[in-house]
Amino acid sequence: MAMSIVEDLETPSVLIDLDIMDRNIASMQARCDELEIQFRPHIKTHKIPDIARRQLDAGAVGIACQKVSEAEVFLAAGFRDIQIPYNIVGRRKTRRLASLAKLAKVTVTVDSAAVIDGIAAAAQESDATINMLVELVSLDKRTGTTPEDALQLARHIAATDSLHFAGLMIYPSAAAIRPHLQKTLTLLKDAGIPVEVVSGGGSGAIREAHLLPELTEMRVGTYVFYDWNSVNSGYAGFESCAMRVRSTVVSANEKSRVILDGGSKAVHSETVNGRYGYILEYPDARLHKLNEEHGYVDFSACEVAPVVGDILHIIPVHTCVVSNLHNQLYGVRGDKIEQVWDVAARGMVW
Amino acid sequence: MAMSIVEDLETPSVLIDLDIMDRNIASMQARCDELEIQFRPHIKTHKIPDIARRQLDAGAVGIACQKVSEAEVFLAAGFRDIQIPYNIVGRRKTRRLASLAKLAKVTVTVDSAAVIDGIAAAAQESDATINMLVELVSLDKRTGTTPEDALQLARHIAATDSLHFAGLMIYPSAAAIRPHLQKTLTLLKDAGIPVEVVSGGGSGAIREAHLLPELTEMRVGTYVFYDWNSVNSGYAGFESCAMRVRSTVVSANEKSRVILDGGSKAVHSETVNGRYGYILEYPDARLHKLNEEHGYVDFSACEVAPVVGDILHIIPVHTCVVSNLHNQLYGVRGDKIEQVWDVAARGMVW
Repeated sequence: MAMSIVEDLETPSVLIDLDIMDRNIASMQARCDELEIQFRPHIKTHKIPDIARRQLDAGAVGIACQKVSEAEVFLAAGFRDIQIPYNIVGRRKTRRLASLAKLAKVTVTVDSAAVIDGIAAAAQESDATINMLVELVSLDKRTGTTPEDALQLARHIAATDSLHFAGLMIYPSAAAIRPHLQKTLTLLKDAGIPVEVVSGGGSGAIREAHLLPELTEMRVGTYVFYDWNSVNSGYAGFESCAMRVRSTVVSANEKSRVILDGGSKAVHSETVNGRYGYILEYPDARLHKLNEEHGYVDFSACEVAPVVGDILHIIPVHTCVVSNLHNQLYGVRGDKIEQVWDVAARGMVW
Repeated sequence: MAMSIVEDLETPSVLIDLDIMDRNIASMQARCDELEIQFRPHIKTHKIPDIARRQLDAGAVGIACQKVSEAEVFLAAGFRDIQIPYNIVGRRKTRRLASLAKLAKVTVTVDSAAVIDGIAAAAQESDATINMLVELVSLDKRTGTTPEDALQLARHIAATDSLHFAGLMIYPSAAAIRPHLQKTLTLLKDAGIPVEVVSGGGSGAIREAHLLPELTEMRVGTYVFYDWNSVNSGYAGFESCAMRVRSTVVSANEKSRVILDGGSKAVHSETVNGRYGYILEYPDARLHKLNEEHGYVDFSACEVAPVVGDILHIIPVHTCVVSNLHNQLYGVRGDKIEQVWDVAARGMVW
C-alpha cells in the first residue's frame, strides 16, 4: 500500500494510536511483574500476530485466544504457547485441537466430563498431550463448575491418557471469588493433585489481582486498546484509548440530524449510556442510533456542528468487536501510517 | 470443500434454507409484478453475487448496495445496473465511483449540494456519467432533504456536466410520506424537470407500496432471508425465515445457565424483546446475553434442557449484520449442503 498519511485513508477506517498502545502494553506488563504473576494477553482484542509479538517482547509468556481457528492463525505465525480458555466441543474441533497440540504447548479449559472425554478421544487418536485447566464458575455465572465438581474433573483428567491436569481457571477473577478458589485448592491439595497454574482474567479483575495471591497468571485483552466501556468502568481514561474509528460526515441538513459513514458495520452495536461511541472532536455530540452504514449524531448540545466532508474520530464502546468487523487496522503515529495490519484472525468463529 | 452434509459442518455456521429462500425470492418478485413496479433487491442482506443473480433471474432489474466497495465486488461479478442509495463523500470514493460508472449504469442518491459537487468533479475528471436521485427525508429522519430543497438540488444536478438527474429516492417509503412526495413531484413538474424514477425501499414499506402509486421501483433486502425482526414486525412468519445459525451447546451445568458457542461474533448484538435470537428447537428458551463467543441461554421455562454437544439452530434478530460477520454461508436443502458461498462483499465498509 503506497499511502502513508492518515489523511489519505478511506473512511470508515480503524486507527490505532501506536504511542498509546505501546504505553498500554508496557504498563500492563509492569503491573503483572509487580504482582509477580505471568501475563498472557488475550488476542481477541486485536486478532493480529504482530501486536501479540509486541506483547510477548514486553514480557508476556504466551497468548490466550478463544477459538481453535484463532489458535491456528497464531500457530502459523509462530506462537508456541497457546491457551484456549474455552470448552472445545465436537469431533472436528477436537481433532484440530489435537493437531495444534502436536506443534505447540496447548492448554484448554473444561467444565464437564463430556468436554474432557471428547478432547481426550482426539488427543489419544493423535498421540498428542493437551493441558487442561478446570474452570471454576465465577460470580458472572457463565461457564464453569463448583469446587466439589472441580475436584472430580481434576481427578478425571489426571486419570486420562494424553491429558495433563495443569490447574484452575476463573473468568472474571474478581477478588470476591477467593473463598471458592481457596476451597477448591484445599480439596485438590488434600487429594494430592498438584496445581501449577491458577489463571485469572478480565479487565476489571487485573485491578484487584493483588487481592487474589493464589493467581499465577492473568489474561487480559482489552487493555491493549481500551475503549469507552473501559473508561465508563473506571479502568482507563480517554487518554489511554488507542482505537478510534475515523468517519466522514455524509449528511448535515439539520444540526440534530447529522449522519456519519460509520454505522454498525464500523463501530458495532454496543452502547454506553445509550451512545454508540464517543466522538473525540465533539464530546457533547450524541451518536444515538446506528444502521449498518449510517451513524446518527445529534449535535444540538454542541455550539457548532460539522459539515459534509468533515472527518470525525470515534472511540468505540467495545474494541474487540470492532476489530472483528474490519479487514485492516492502521497503526498511526501523529499523521503517519506506520503499520497496515491485516486482522488475520478476523471472523474466526470455529 | 469435500463435505456435503450439514452434520459435518463446524459450528457456529450460518445455514440458508434454499427452499425458503427460493420462495421468498419468487413471492417478492410476484408482489412487485402485481404492483407493476420494478424490483431492485438490496444485496446488503447476503453480500453474495450468486444470490443476487437468482434475484435478477426471477425478474429484478438491477441491484442496490450501500457502499462503493460493495458495488466494486458486484461489478467484478458481472452486474451492470447498480444503485448506491447513499451520499458518496470524499475524493477517493468519488473517483472510484466514477471508475465504476465507466463500466456500468451507476445511480447514487444525494441530499446536499456538497455531495453533488464532489461527485460531479470526479465524474468530469473521468468523463463518466453518474445518475442521481435526490433523497427526500422520510419520517425516520435519516438522510434526505425537503421538497423545496429537492427542487433546488434537482436543478443543480440537471445543470451540471456529467450528471443526470434521474428522480427521487425515499427510505423507508412509508405511505404516510405521500403528501411530501406529491408536493416534490409537482414542484419538479412545474419546473419542467422530468422524473424517471421514484425509488422506494424498506421491508415494511413494500407492504404499503400500493398506497404510494408514484413509486416506479422498490428496494428491499431482508426479505430474501427474513429474520426475527421481520417476524416481530409482522412482515413474515418463522416459516419464511431462511437463515439459522447452527450452534453447539458447550456448557450445561445448570438448566438456567447453558452456554452456546454462538455469541456476538456469530449472531450479532441486536435484540427482540431482550433476546438475541429465537432457538428453533426450544421456543421457550431465552438467549438473553452474549459475549463474543458465548451465548447464554436460560432453559428454565422448557421441560428439558439440552446437554453438552447438542446442536441448536437460532433464527437471528437481523440477518444483514449476521452475513457481515461470516466468511461463508451454507445453502442447504434438508440435510444436504448444496452451496458453499463466500460472503464476497463482507466487510466492505468503504
